[in-house]
Amino acid sequence: MPRLRLTLAYDGTAFAGWQLQAPGRGRTVQGCLEEALATLCGEPVRIFGAGRTDSGVHAMAQVAHVDVPEGRAAIPWQKALNALLPADMSVAGAELVPDGFHARFCATGKVYHYTLWTEPGHVLPWRRPYVWDVGRYGRLDVAAMDACAACFAGFHDFAAFQNAGSDVKTTTRLVHGVTRLATGGPEMVWRFHAEGFLKQMVRNLMGALVAVGRGKVSPEDIRSVLTQGQRRLAPQTAPASGLCLVVVEYGEHGRGHKRHLLHQPEAGQG
Amino acid sequence: MPRLRLTLAYDGTAFAGWQLQAPGRGRTVQGCLEEALATLCGEPVRIFGAGRTDSGVHAMAQVAHVDVPEGRAAIPWQKALNALLPADMSVAGAELVPDGFHARFCATGKVYHYTLWTEPGHVLPWRRPYVWDVGRYGRLDVAAMDACAACFAGFHDFAAFQNAGSDVKTTTRLVHGVTRLATGGPEMVWRFHAEGFLKQMVRNLMGALVAVGRGKVSPEDIRSVLTQGQRRLAPQTAPASGLCLVVVEYGEHGRGHKRHLLHQPEAGQG
Repeated sequence: MPRLRLTLAYDGTAFAGWQLQAPGRGRTVQGCLEEALATLCGEPVRIFGAGRTDSGVHAMAQVAHVDVPEGRAAIPWQKALNALLPADMSVAGAELVPDGFHARFCATGKVYHYTLWTEPGHVLPWRRPYVWDVGRYGRLDVAAMDACAACFAGFHDFAAFQNAGSDVKTTTRLVHGVTRLATGGPEMVWRFHAEGFLKQMVRNLMGALVAVGRGKVSPEDIRSVLTQGQRRLAPQTAPASGLCLVVVEYGEHGRGHKRHLLHQPEAGQG
Repeated sequence: MPRLRLTLAYDGTAFAGWQLQAPGRGRTVQGCLEEALATLCGEPVRIFGAGRTDSGVHAMAQVAHVDVPEGRAAIPWQKALNALLPADMSVAGAELVPDGFHARFCATGKVYHYTLWTEPGHVLPWRRPYVWDVGRYGRLDVAAMDACAACFAGFHDFAAFQNAGSDVKTTTRLVHGVTRLATGGPEMVWRFHAEGFLKQMVRNLMGALVAVGRGKVSPEDIRSVLTQGQRRLAPQTAPASGLCLVVVEYGEHGRGHKRHLLHQPEAGQG
């Protein structure tokens, strides 16, 4: 069967996350997509995403793949799907790919952005679902946050920054870099780039960075939490609203082969 | 009675515009504000806005004034109002001003931004309520749009760019400038700066600019529509979604006096 690779944008606000839930348990991105795809395919289909975003988490370029019936390969997928999908999601790209492509297993890296609202007093109403309002906490110590962020780069056991409910084999991950992007105005955007992330890892790292920025803990405290690997020692999880999946990376081998773990940090990162 | 000046941000999507409607005729910004103010004042109050934004039009810094009871002057208005207002509006500033200040009559200028989504294929879902999707029309002729925009600067009779339903004495307005702001990515933002605007004038000027960008009409055609002053000759009105009131200007005399018309274009504009 022809395999279709989709690039997806969605506003996570009104979704109970990516992953399909039992009927009546919530509207999901996967559910809405499979429904639109089934309409176009004339039969039920299963879609596989690069990552399962949580409820309230947004995506600018989530990647997914799906096998479609032979006779439907030539459908103008992007246009056809966008005509069927609800207003809070859209297809940014659609292309046929070799059988070996797997949205999740071929991914070699991911980039998330996390947006903080740093101005005290009020959040612009239309930015509320897309930021974490930390303006109420006063001015953040940005230098301390930068110092803390630098500790996250490299190979580490991130067990202290993983929430319960996951069954991964290892909690070691290669983080290419956690960096603050230069932005004007009241928002501060953090970029998290890694080979892969544990469950709610970005939100836990962001929670730690804000705790450091508020002077609740020091960068050294966070480094020690990382070393000790105990979740209960780490600061609170940042809310889902500020998080957005912006890139899923596929290496040269990603277009048709399962990935081989690449253990070289990317040039210019970390 | 003490007079309060409020600076307001709102997402216009779920409002039937600024102006109070008959009961049951729609949720309005003015209505929501007066309700919250009445709660804090212990009595009904009337609020006056600098301009009546249409349904679906957003504001980053709308200005309004309201007289509050003597005994309530010391309320921390911004915080108190933000605690009561719905999530799609917020108070960005609140201060006591002299009696002579009038949000509408003291205003000496306004700035609106209009955002176009110019990339074909898909609009990011969370940008849909804040843009006009012109990506479907193909690449815009930006040079022609710039040339057309330059024609709008100065004193002109904008009768051709006013929609029905207004009772203004004159349709002549001083436009300081209509300029394209440099922006990255798929969005193109236009800035409209004038002493004042007619009903739906920004949306009509934007509609004309897009018609020029699409090659439907030439800048000379639009200049001729402006001269002839007939609405039926002008291109379609741009949708409300892309429009945002970003600044209301008050001159040196604006803090306590009715305005005197200032007929000097601002340096660097137009």
